Amino acid sequence: MPGALLTRFDQTFIDTDPTRQKVAQAESKEDVPSYSLPQYTREDVKKHKNPSDRIWVTYAGEVFDITDFVDLHPGGNRILLAAGGALEPFWALYGVHKSEHVMEILQEYKVGVLSPEDKEEPCDVSDPYSGDPSRHPILKVNSQKPFNAEPPPELLTDSFITPNELFFKRNHLPVPNINPDKFQLVVDRPPGAKQGKPLKLSLKDLKAKFAQHEVTATLQCAGNRRSEMNAIKQVKGLDWGTAAISTARWAGVRLRDVLLDAGYTEDTPNLLHVQFEGLDQDITGTKYGASISFKRAMSKDHEVLLAYEMNGEELPKDHGFPLRVIVPGVVGARNVKWLGRIIVSAEESPSHWQQNDYKGFNPNVDWDTVDFSSSPAIQDLPVQSAITEPRPGEKITPNHDGNVTIKGYAWSGGGKEIVRVDVSLDGGKTWKVAELTGEEKEGLAWAWKIWRLEAAIPVECNEMTIICKAVDNNYNVQPDSVAPIWNLRGVLNNAWHRISVTVDQDEH
Amino acid sequence: MPGALLTRFDQTFIDTDPTRQKVAQAESKEDVPSYSLPQYTREDVKKHKNPSDRIWVTYAGEVFDITDFVDLHPGGNRILLAAGGALEPFWALYGVHKSEHVMEILQEYKVGVLSPEDKEEPCDVSDPYSGDPSRHPILKVNSQKPFNAEPPPELLTDSFITPNELFFKRNHLPVPNINPDKFQLVVDRPPGAKQGKPLKLSLKDLKAKFAQHEVTATLQCAGNRRSEMNAIKQVKGLDWGTAAISTARWAGVRLRDVLLDAGYTEDTPNLLHVQFEGLDQDITGTKYGASISFKRAMSKDHEVLLAYEMNGEELPKDHGFPLRVIVPGVVGARNVKWLGRIIVSAEESPSHWQQNDYKGFNPNVDWDTVDFSSSPAIQDLPVQSAITEPRPGEKITPNHDGNVTIKGYAWSGGGKEIVRVDVSLDGGKTWKVAELTGEEKEGLAWAWKIWRLEAAIPVECNEMTIICKAVDNNYNVQPDSVAPIWNLRGVLNNAWHRISVTVDQDEH
Repeated sequence: MPGALLTRFDQTFIDTDPTRQKVAQAESKEDVPSYSLPQYTREDVKKHKNPSDRIWVTYAGEVFDITDFVDLHPGGNRILLAAGGALEPFWALYGVHKSEHVMEILQEYKVGVLSPEDKEEPCDVSDPYSGDPSRHPILKVNSQKPFNAEPPPELLTDSFITPNELFFKRNHLPVPNINPDKFQLVVDRPPGAKQGKPLKLSLKDLKAKFAQHEVTATLQCAGNRRSEMNAIKQVKGLDWGTAAISTARWAGVRLRDVLLDAGYTEDTPNLLHVQFEGLDQDITGTKYGASISFKRAMSKDHEVLLAYEMNGEELPKDHGFPLRVIVPGVVGARNVKWLGRIIVSAEESPSHWQQNDYKGFNPNVDWDTVDFSSSPAIQDLPVQSAITEPRPGEKITPNHDGNVTIKGYAWSGGGKEIVRVDVSLDGGKTWKVAELTGEEKEGLAWAWKIWRLEAAIPVECNEMTIICKAVDNNYNVQPDSVAPIWNLRGVLNNAWHRISVTVDQDEH
Repeated sequence: MPGALLTRFDQTFIDTDPTRQKVAQAESKEDVPSYSLPQYTREDVKKHKNPSDRIWVTYAGEVFDITDFVDLHPGGNRILLAAGGALEPFWALYGVHKSEHVMEILQEYKVGVLSPEDKEEPCDVSDPYSGDPSRHPILKVNSQKPFNAEPPPELLTDSFITPNELFFKRNHLPVPNINPDKFQLVVDRPPGAKQGKPLKLSLKDLKAKFAQHEVTATLQCAGNRRSEMNAIKQVKGLDWGTAAISTARWAGVRLRDVLLDAGYTEDTPNLLHVQFEGLDQDITGTKYGASISFKRAMSKDHEVLLAYEMNGEELPKDHGFPLRVIVPGVVGARNVKWLGRIIVSAEESPSHWQQNDYKGFNPNVDWDTVDFSSSPAIQDLPVQSAITEPRPGEKITPNHDGNVTIKGYAWSGGGKEIVRVDVSLDGGKTWKVAELTGEEKEGLAWAWKIWRLEAAIPVECNEMTIICKAVDNNYNVQPDSVAPIWNLRGVLNNAWHRISVTVDQDEH
């Protein structure tokens, strides 16, 4: 097969230099010396993202035209995610590629080398964001500074757990640079406690003093699916698609245990809220902050964690290294990253993000009339679901049985488990029940379900509106449409997810 | 004013007997001797329900034509609820009427007496329902045997607490006749408990051994608003309107305290459910039963009660006398009445009502394809709201400012508080925020909010679609329409509530 492919490659690769063609033909393909191949910059490679322009990728300083390999790729057209760029970040995610066999195949498609001067630019040290980590190029960036990005939705449902590199990133400020050896979490003591000074805990203290606890939890940004609200009427906020949601296995210690150690008890009077202060700050020194209820913090059932691991790895810099809060079932904004201090109080966090953001309003409230004190801070999120495959506008080809496969995710906040996902292929006239996969767990449910439906395409259908809607175990359902839940901040969009696709009936 | 009214009454009351007219004119109105007035049966009175037939009511064996008093009634046209029947049940509800002054006014309208033989028929003792209590005639009866009835919706929002007589009745079986002095609640012991025999508690024991606890809780039938599902496609079940929901102040003892006394602890292994067995049974001896989770039963926060009082009175027969379960935030069906026995177990109640009823399904599941084991038993109910005034089809008259007043209720299960009700007067194009009234309470919210909006009628509007939708503090919202949540049992209808009314613009 490599030989056949090479032939196709040779026939279609446009190279008008007769000398180089000769060299390539004379030597075996593996032995093409790099000096005999043209040099390209990363900018050159970027222009080759579509079959019409040929599809190029780079690996280890070499350039490959993989146009003719796409149909042969065992992972299907996922390979196109790397089109016009480097393979390394994808192979880091999908380790199966790191084999001699794969390298051999790749070499068949070599068309050039990267020009030596084409290296990463040095970072600007005067930029407060210069310490931000590098990110996976597959992410769709909604804002570079602060960094906010989401993965391609179709990757979310490839696996129940989202790989750390793909997990959506939602930063409000520059990523702080924290020395884990000097890090100390400060926990204020209860009023009138015998020990006057705050409790200070190093990472080592945390791990030594408290039992480790793990929880698989889905986090979702309140602005997930904001772009659908923007489509109705402009809102303020990052233009998130459907992938500001991800799932990881978190390990750390229970917040409850730390609060008990600091001297709090379930009955400590007048303490209703637990405030979290991040170590991320703006140029004025204002830190990110948020709070949850003291009752939730102290509840065994709610499993609130101070997490130092994400999917078995040290917490990545973008996700709060070295310590963050995980509040299962609750809007992402309360899952404070780079946690520096915990304050137990009668009042919610005074931070902008708790008081004047992340709240819902009636669709007719505008920026002239909004009163942020009139709405509660978002905590538990309502039931949600979205279609991840096919993609909106895609031309889909039915399989031999005339069926198509639809995939997506569904989740509900507050520990409520998804019990059903209904999918319609006819714009909402009829509904089929999707298959669900998820985690078996006793007690409250913190993680999403991945859903899948293989169903027949309605006869004679060239265009199709696919809709999904989920039901949780409290029988909460999603609203039908976006406009009536539209709000000026574009949060809490959990309307049915609808996409339109065209159907390739010829191949059927 | 009584004189003026009397004149109008005299002019319009059709009595062709000149002798009697003479007698009436000669004597003062208060002194009209009963023997001089015509006799009517209750059937005769029933025919006078509308102004066109004159409006008659009875009180203490006398018959009154109150047609001309209706506009003068301080309580407005609420008085029409008694049209064609007895005033006693309404005056029992609205005690303000029991005054000499009101009696004097009423006497002005006397037109006859009830015929002496027109008494209540004796009950049929062979009928298993013969022991059922008498009910308030204002209730709209959906089923007589077993008795199921709801109040006129507009009365629900007259007061935050629903009077016991108006509280919706939902019986599955005949009301059992229980001697409170011999009543014993049986509570099974944990497996391997030292005390082998079940714990038996008389009413006196319950009141003496355990602290009294009170909670204001809204109960809602899973079938509330089923009639709107029926309007789309026939379902199986009682045709409830919007009033299978009511709110009372319940007093009793905490289920948790009783379970602790029987030997259970929060950590008793393998016990996941608490089953309740009613003393109501069918002719085969099958008793009503249902269950809730053991965790909820043991939770202080969830305030599950064994209640013996409703709104400060002994529990009425229809509501479970002498003892019932109150599970705040949970579907009515689990609030087992006439409680006889409590069983803690690894499994849910095996009863029909837990296993094969009160569950939700995809709208395309029918009686041939339904698998009851595939859906969870309904517990916490989703967010709900409905309009109680005006009534659908009503002709409404704007006030002097061109405004109308809309009223309704809103509630959410699971302890979630209603934080906003949006009301639209233009079929959903724009939304106004209603005023909420309710109970101030720490912790979880178990009672509804009554809402009210005074708003301008859209200009040149002769017909109007009014819609309401509520939001709870988890930002759960109601779905837009009924069809996509339709299910074969007609449960869980919490779509936006829509009504159409006509507008009397002439009087505007």
